[in-house]
Amino acid sequence: MPRLTLRIDFDNGSQIGHGKIRLLELIAEHGSISSAAREMGMSYRRAWLLTDELNRMFRSPVLETQHGGSGGGAARLTSFGHAIVGHYRAFEAQSMKLFGKQLAELERDLVDREHRPGGV
Amino acid sequence: MPRLTLRIDFDNGSQIGHGKIRLLELIAEHGSISSAAREMGMSYRRAWLLTDELNRMFRSPVLETQHGGSGGGAARLTSFGHAIVGHYRAFEAQSMKLFGKQLAELERDLVDREHRPGGV
Repeated sequence: MPRLTLRIDFDNGSQIGHGKIRLLELIAEHGSISSAAREMGMSYRRAWLLTDELNRMFRSPVLETQHGGSGGGAARLTSFGHAIVGHYRAFEAQSMKLFGKQLAELERDLVDREHRPGGV
Repeated sequence: MPRLTLRIDFDNGSQIGHGKIRLLELIAEHGSISSAAREMGMSYRRAWLLTDELNRMFRSPVLETQHGGSGGGAARLTSFGHAIVGHYRAFEAQSMKLFGKQLAELERDLVDREHRPGGV
């Protein structure tokens, strides 16, 4: 089944897409930015910069951190952070429900992978 | 008004997103890959590789080209290519119609740009 990924571009230049949302979900799951970064194959620095960007993006913070040893301490989503993740996943689920049939039709028009000598 | 951008990931690894669709639209408009590339600030080589990928992606070609001088000749979308662009833009328009209100609410939670000293 094809997958639909959404990116939201706000008027002020802020963006939310699959990467930031996945990072927030993994932080919620692991309670740590460094563990979430590791699972995404992302550097701790990159993950930290993304969470910092997310925390400055909205009037309310998206996550709360407690500084710990090397590699960062504990981190958890605020209720607003959980709401952002929930909105995004709801948009995604509703889109798939709406467009799933048309996407599946498009997929039937794809060339089979084994017939695409130079294809990705 | 926030903007929603969609990316479709098919099971075989093929992707269609805003960049490829915009390139197809500009090729349809200008009748040339090189003019479309120029308008997107993209190299001719990159644009050509993307159109080649699109043409190998589906059972039917997405665009037809006539080789010309340096910088490439004429190019036009096939009816299938127009259909792909149409599907994508319809998904986008329907998503905005559905989620526009919620997105506008999210936007109201954004920090004003002038209040974000380190923001993007």
